[in-house]
Amino acid sequence: MDDRTGLRIVPDTARPPVNRYGNRPTMKDVAARAGVGLKTVSRVVNGEPGVTPDTERRVQEAIDALGFRRNDSARVLRKGRTASIGLVLEDLADPFYGPLSRAVEEVARSHGALLINGSSAEDPDREQELVLALCARRVDGLVVIPAGDDHRYLEPELRAGVATVFVDRPAGRIDADVVLSDSFGGARDGVAHLIAHGHRRVGFIGDMPRIHTAAERLRGYRAAMEQAGIPVEDSWMSLGVTDPERVRRAAEEMLSGPDPVTAIFAGNNRVTVTVVRVLARHSRPVALVGFDDFELADLLRPGVTVVAQDAAALGRTAADRLFRQLDGTLLAPERVQLPTRLITRGSGELPPAV
Amino acid sequence: MDDRTGLRIVPDTARPPVNRYGNRPTMKDVAARAGVGLKTVSRVVNGEPGVTPDTERRVQEAIDALGFRRNDSARVLRKGRTASIGLVLEDLADPFYGPLSRAVEEVARSHGALLINGSSAEDPDREQELVLALCARRVDGLVVIPAGDDHRYLEPELRAGVATVFVDRPAGRIDADVVLSDSFGGARDGVAHLIAHGHRRVGFIGDMPRIHTAAERLRGYRAAMEQAGIPVEDSWMSLGVTDPERVRRAAEEMLSGPDPVTAIFAGNNRVTVTVVRVLARHSRPVALVGFDDFELADLLRPGVTVVAQDAAALGRTAADRLFRQLDGTLLAPERVQLPTRLITRGSGELPPAV
Repeated sequence: MDDRTGLRIVPDTARPPVNRYGNRPTMKDVAARAGVGLKTVSRVVNGEPGVTPDTERRVQEAIDALGFRRNDSARVLRKGRTASIGLVLEDLADPFYGPLSRAVEEVARSHGALLINGSSAEDPDREQELVLALCARRVDGLVVIPAGDDHRYLEPELRAGVATVFVDRPAGRIDADVVLSDSFGGARDGVAHLIAHGHRRVGFIGDMPRIHTAAERLRGYRAAMEQAGIPVEDSWMSLGVTDPERVRRAAEEMLSGPDPVTAIFAGNNRVTVTVVRVLARHSRPVALVGFDDFELADLLRPGVTVVAQDAAALGRTAADRLFRQLDGTLLAPERVQLPTRLITRGSGELPPAV
Repeated sequence: MDDRTGLRIVPDTARPPVNRYGNRPTMKDVAARAGVGLKTVSRVVNGEPGVTPDTERRVQEAIDALGFRRNDSARVLRKGRTASIGLVLEDLADPFYGPLSRAVEEVARSHGALLINGSSAEDPDREQELVLALCARRVDGLVVIPAGDDHRYLEPELRAGVATVFVDRPAGRIDADVVLSDSFGGARDGVAHLIAHGHRRVGFIGDMPRIHTAAERLRGYRAAMEQAGIPVEDSWMSLGVTDPERVRRAAEEMLSGPDPVTAIFAGNNRVTVTVVRVLARHSRPVALVGFDDFELADLLRPGVTVVAQDAAALGRTAADRLFRQLDGTLLAPERVQLPTRLITRGSGELPPAV
């Protein structure tokens, strides 16, 4: 028993464990076929010196003939570093995370590391389960888009040297590197844009308020309204899950009754596409600004004005910081905030319908 | 040296390897703190019987206090199975793969397995590198959307018992489970739909012809044209990378000159969204049918008629088959083909402009 790893050691004389599909060829098989000793095979496999070219060729031929592959699980135990990083997303199918994932993967690849990822489906328990499963596989580092707001469960991993960067949303109750878009400022500017086009009755539809970005964007909405001296009515704000049915009902409620809103600020791209569908069937034109850009926003009629964040830059910045942690060139945890950009396309410039 | 794994064994008396960030607590640390023997800690960690409730509590308290975590790399070596599967995609940022990935992940999760994924960026060398890296981590199985067309490099892994299912595109030069959409039939029906609306000069813009789906969809286009007795001119077909610039030029060429096409069949969603952009600026209405559905296709004016494939069903079917291979309930490799569905929304029903 190796007490560091909990590995039960099988002596050479014991029968090796058999999996149900057969056995992989072993170094012993390679040694027998090449007519050399085990140590020689080990040297060739691990690229160590002390083997003649002729012997190396014989070993390589035996490796190719048998299909022998080194087991990197063993290397992980021996060397500490695994050359892999984990990425925990909220939802693999949300298009916002596509460019972010690709950017993280490109940075990982430029460092010779494999990217391992999975999604939490916005469930804090699942996030923790996934993060700890990745740590159990001994990834060198983690980029996390958190679903939960208490990350103290990560403290032993951080002490053990797992590099960690949170992205899109901050870590909760631990001191960690964080890369965010300016959700507050972006939402404030987007709502101010609607107000500048004559709107006073502006609705806000966002994600669940426990999600940091949703709360920040709501705060930006309130700040813009307050700055314009407009008292916000409760019926103008709707926060909750972003499934189309909930968002559709929220939008329809704001747009009905004696004093309907004349403009809507949508808190993320999932909300925006549903609001676009509702407005397409609505009798009066309603102004719309959405947080997050999305494909084809410019081809809708009217084009959809958005507060764009740079998803690829978020991923790239987070991954760069992760590898700087691993290199030892990044010392204290920081909060990096990336700016957003208002892109006007028509929907946010509609005047209030009378 | 354990010859099965190539693991160099560190005796208990040796100094354990130190990584640059500190050391993880060991079972020995847990044993010392709980005042029990190593074997007792091992029993608690591995859920084995023979420990009194009181002792188990003491060990658990020491584990919590020290932040000890079992190293699954060691379990992989000991048990053979890793409860993880790999997914090799073509592009993390292509929205077609979002629902497919999510479906694979849901099936993996229902089997208690972790999903590890990465993308090949349509590069056969990178696909092989990634697949072998995942095998070196000893995933139990692989779902592969292949970039290459020669998968003999996988033969040693298949012999060693790695379950493998190819999805979206077939394996090359090996006998493997494959789950595909009916690219040929879907494209043939989509082109026949355009012909039924009066078009004879129908263009085809697709992906690189070495990609199986692209070749099959081109074959479907040719079949529909032949069935209608329309000789296809070379200038009506353009195959190549799907980057917007190449597709834009291809579409503009087909739409110019003395005998422009009056309809376009787009070979996948990346091509379709670029063609939609070109047509939005074009002087005459041009009919369009695209392979793959995409978000907001129904909200464009006209709505975009598509040949939809069920990306989630592809992922779910592939992952189900993978776990049936692992359970031993799936015997011979098969090719499963899922149907496509024509969704009419307006763009494919436009008559030829005169």
